[in-house]
Amino acid sequence: MTLQERQPERTTIVLFSGELDKAIAAFIIANGAAAFDHEVTIFCTFWGLNALRKDEAVPVKKNLLERMFGAMMPRGPRKFGLSKMNMMGMGPAMIKNVMKKHNALSLPQLMELAQEQGVKLVACTMTMDLLGLKKEELIEGIEYAGVAAYLGDATEAKVNLFI
Amino acid sequence: MTLQERQPERTTIVLFSGELDKAIAAFIIANGAAAFDHEVTIFCTFWGLNALRKDEAVPVKKNLLERMFGAMMPRGPRKFGLSKMNMMGMGPAMIKNVMKKHNALSLPQLMELAQEQGVKLVACTMTMDLLGLKKEELIEGIEYAGVAAYLGDATEAKVNLFI
Amino acid sequence: MTLQERQPERTTIVLFSGELDKAIAAFIIANGAAAFDHEVTIFCTFWGLNALRKDEAVPVKKNLLERMFGAMMPRGPRKFGLSKMNMMGMGPAMIKNVMKKHNALSLPQLMELAQEQGVKLVACTMTMDLLGLKKEELIEGIEYAGVAAYLGDATEAKVNLFI
Repeated sequence: MTLQERQPERTTIVLFSGELDKAIAAFIIANGAAAFDHEVTIFCTFWGLNALRKDEAVPVKKNLLERMFGAMMPRGPRKFGLSKMNMMGMGPAMIKNVMKKHNALSLPQLMELAQEQGVKLVACTMTMDLLGLKKEELIEGIEYAGVAAYLGDATEAKVNLFI
Repeated sequence: MTLQERQPERTTIVLFSGELDKAIAAFIIANGAAAFDHEVTIFCTFWGLNALRKDEAVPVKKNLLERMFGAMMPRGPRKFGLSKMNMMGMGPAMIKNVMKKHNALSLPQLMELAQEQGVKLVACTMTMDLLGLKKEELIEGIEYAGVAAYLGDATEAKVNLFI
Repeated sequence: MTLQERQPERTTIVLFSGELDKAIAAFIIANGAAAFDHEVTIFCTFWGLNALRKDEAVPVKKNLLERMFGAMMPRGPRKFGLSKMNMMGMGPAMIKNVMKKHNALSLPQLMELAQEQGVKLVACTMTMDLLGLKKEELIEGIEYAGVAAYLGDATEAKVNLFI
């Protein structure tokens, strides 16, 4: 037991979903774990990769299908919809409004806090390839890796969630 | 290994989803784990918190937005829809019918069994605040906590699921 | 630690979802874990059980409700839709097209690889009962078990995901 106690706990989250409520849940858990001194990895894959996109369009070379994917998917966390009660975009506005009133952190603020706390944000390189997203289109301070690196972290962690 | 064998195993589930099929899956896993003498925690957050609502309306003081959230979200597990093939509410009726024929426990029965087996049902206090749900509106015999308490349990568990 | 190091690591995945993108994510993680010599179990339950269905219709005796379920749910991984941007079936075609261009394995290929690597695919017998799916309708080389067997594997694993 002593050996284990010396090592920090680890938490990993696969952020698969590109939805406001699920991403908020992921970053609240990640920030909580980081506050407990866990080493935390959020592996952003599939639709979840959109959380790492910059708000603004970045001029990069893309083929037609990549341009289509880029246009159809939300550009950054501010554009995320809800998994439930999206109501043509009214739901996210209501949730954001209510979170503001309760002084709860917004998703972009939760992400900023996560980065400040040393949470490792990883962009899934396979998803980047498939959807044609380039490094220039993603936010700063993140890492780039594949499923092997994720599994390396997850195998050393006890709390492993798929969101 | 001997030290570990003396401690009971732990299982935690974050119930994020407010859908019949996912909640059934969560409570089947929880009851199974409890039958194996695991200490089980179900942390009900976001839409999953609705599983802990009483069937009937409870008169509590709410502002307009809280009343709207309360009215739009399902009041208790009997009102849950399906994540797939909901078919305007016909899907849940079909599933419930088929479960009855096979003598499978309904969601309310699975929840009752979970409480009898000592599964710890936790209402996420942050979600209660945001959606304006009061303790009087939730079922008896549950605990109230935040993400820190969840992480405390999860860190001691090997089976941690996000549903 | 020495005792633990002699045992292989374990990874379990509950495949609850019957959607192309989520199933692809599940099998990519499973194949990655198998490549790292983990013992991997994918427990296919609820809609995820459809991943184990054969492509062709198999003549078995069913009642009306079972025939309805059988007809409404996708028959095998080739029929899966997307959880996002399904766009009346155009989304899956686009994703499949893009995966082919990048020489990424398709879901049926990922499943074949998983079986070759010794990933244990388990059909949830409770779901089979409820939805009226018979062994003859499912692919070869899989196991049949309930939640108890899943929990037995999960309790020995560190990476346990619900997808």
